[in-house]
Amino acid sequence: MAYPAEVRIVEVGPRDGLQNEKLDIGTANKIALIDRLSATGLRSIEAAAFVSPKWVPQMADAAEVLAGISRKPGVSYPVLVPNEQGYERARAAGAGEVAVFTAASEAFNLKNTNAGIDESLRRFEPVLARAKADGVKVRGYVSTVLGCPYQGEVPLADVVRVSRSLHAMGCYEISLGDTIGIGTPGKARAMLQAVAAEVPMPALAVHFHDTYGQALANVLACLEEGVAVVDSAVSGAGGCPYAKGATGNVASEDVVYMLHGLGIRTGIDLDALAATGRWLAGLLGRDTGSRVGKALAAA
Amino acid sequence: MAYPAEVRIVEVGPRDGLQNEKLDIGTANKIALIDRLSATGLRSIEAAAFVSPKWVPQMADAAEVLAGISRKPGVSYPVLVPNEQGYERARAAGAGEVAVFTAASEAFNLKNTNAGIDESLRRFEPVLARAKADGVKVRGYVSTVLGCPYQGEVPLADVVRVSRSLHAMGCYEISLGDTIGIGTPGKARAMLQAVAAEVPMPALAVHFHDTYGQALANVLACLEEGVAVVDSAVSGAGGCPYAKGATGNVASEDVVYMLHGLGIRTGIDLDALAATGRWLAGLLGRDTGSRVGKALAAA
Repeated sequence: MAYPAEVRIVEVGPRDGLQNEKLDIGTANKIALIDRLSATGLRSIEAAAFVSPKWVPQMADAAEVLAGISRKPGVSYPVLVPNEQGYERARAAGAGEVAVFTAASEAFNLKNTNAGIDESLRRFEPVLARAKADGVKVRGYVSTVLGCPYQGEVPLADVVRVSRSLHAMGCYEISLGDTIGIGTPGKARAMLQAVAAEVPMPALAVHFHDTYGQALANVLACLEEGVAVVDSAVSGAGGCPYAKGATGNVASEDVVYMLHGLGIRTGIDLDALAATGRWLAGLLGRDTGSRVGKALAAA
Repeated sequence: MAYPAEVRIVEVGPRDGLQNEKLDIGTANKIALIDRLSATGLRSIEAAAFVSPKWVPQMADAAEVLAGISRKPGVSYPVLVPNEQGYERARAAGAGEVAVFTAASEAFNLKNTNAGIDESLRRFEPVLARAKADGVKVRGYVSTVLGCPYQGEVPLADVVRVSRSLHAMGCYEISLGDTIGIGTPGKARAMLQAVAAEVPMPALAVHFHDTYGQALANVLACLEEGVAVVDSAVSGAGGCPYAKGATGNVASEDVVYMLHGLGIRTGIDLDALAATGRWLAGLLGRDTGSRVGKALAAA
């Protein structure tokens, strides 16, 4: 079995994780979290979202977070922007990389953003144009790639179409997200294969939530297909407001443990990452959502 | 990727699970658990262990459990026996299938059974001989196949040697156990390949604990190698008294969800299995250890 020699982890805990946690840990702790993560060897840390505080109150302090963190050379700190206005706020706050997002499910996108997929893509055009002029890298998220809480099945053709559009618009990387954590490895593999037929594999990332406990197995299947970028959240932070009982993102610690066990380099200090996950869990008032985090603490 | 068309789950919750839980749910509940499991479509349910109550008080009622359950035609109810005396007790209680066990790690076997591996194998000889004469099937467990809490690395050659010995002695199936849940998919795959070079794949099963969250990914890697028997415990029951912080067996519900998603038949009613897992977790005074169990309850 041929795996990539090296995998880049995109740590999404400070954004996708905290955005979906009920408890707000506060600005100072968000800054401390990102600084701790920077010290683990991570190279991509999603720092915040410049979205409406009305819809996502947890991200209302995005500008302060971005202003407060100590940026480590070689580490990128992308932030989510929903439209041109968000892009302007992000840039004013000093963002050097941004991310745009749409669902592969029309029904989900309407509920989540009040816009159809095509409308979302149109909103991103000025973002991509300005980012290009500004020399700002743009990541693209495609959600609900393995199922939707509203429409159920999501046709592979829709996942491919949206991914291809984002890549054609200039996104350097497309993150394929099983937002509700419903997928299994065969479906994850088939989805990735279908997208990789239209968008080069080095421009693809996978993003799994662990609602049904399948996330790490899904990551494994996608590694076997050659993907070399994996999104995850320290301590398994997060959830999904649109899926009852949904657990958070796959825990970064568990992914890194598997990667290192497979002989794949990540550049990450697993002990430091696990300690950060336990520290975050303490702030959130619960046990770490990472099995590795628990096991290393007991060992 | 070619997976087996069908997988047999060996449900080890009533034995490996409960034996390692701190709380004893009592004889009546053990009987109810096994009867509920029988109704899910499972074909193999490990029912009890005929070991010394001095060492394993949770299994002191093994004979009552075996006497109390309603045996469903087509379902086997193996019980663990450490030696000829245990075999006699099991047979007197009406056991139709037994299981013997040894570690691949000499250090672990000494700690766990007060006998070296060769001594353990010698103790099994009369068991296998009598079982053959009695028409009783014997399953063999090999533990610590991916690591040992005492000696660390366990050479693959030792795993192969012990597996080959048990098979040659007459065990119809060898269950390869990562007792401390430390392995990752590449190592699991390599271990299975090494054993399968000496013992036919249809005579092999895999048995993972989820200490480091790797169990389902390990199962996936082994399915890809052709294994078609997987041990698991409903609700992720269990733990390992020899590994601090160790979580239980991989949850049967999560394995079955993955198998069904892969298009692999199990004959199991997942909803009934998940409901049984939640019922058991209630008896144990905690949340189900199965993500699927949680997600289905919330859905």
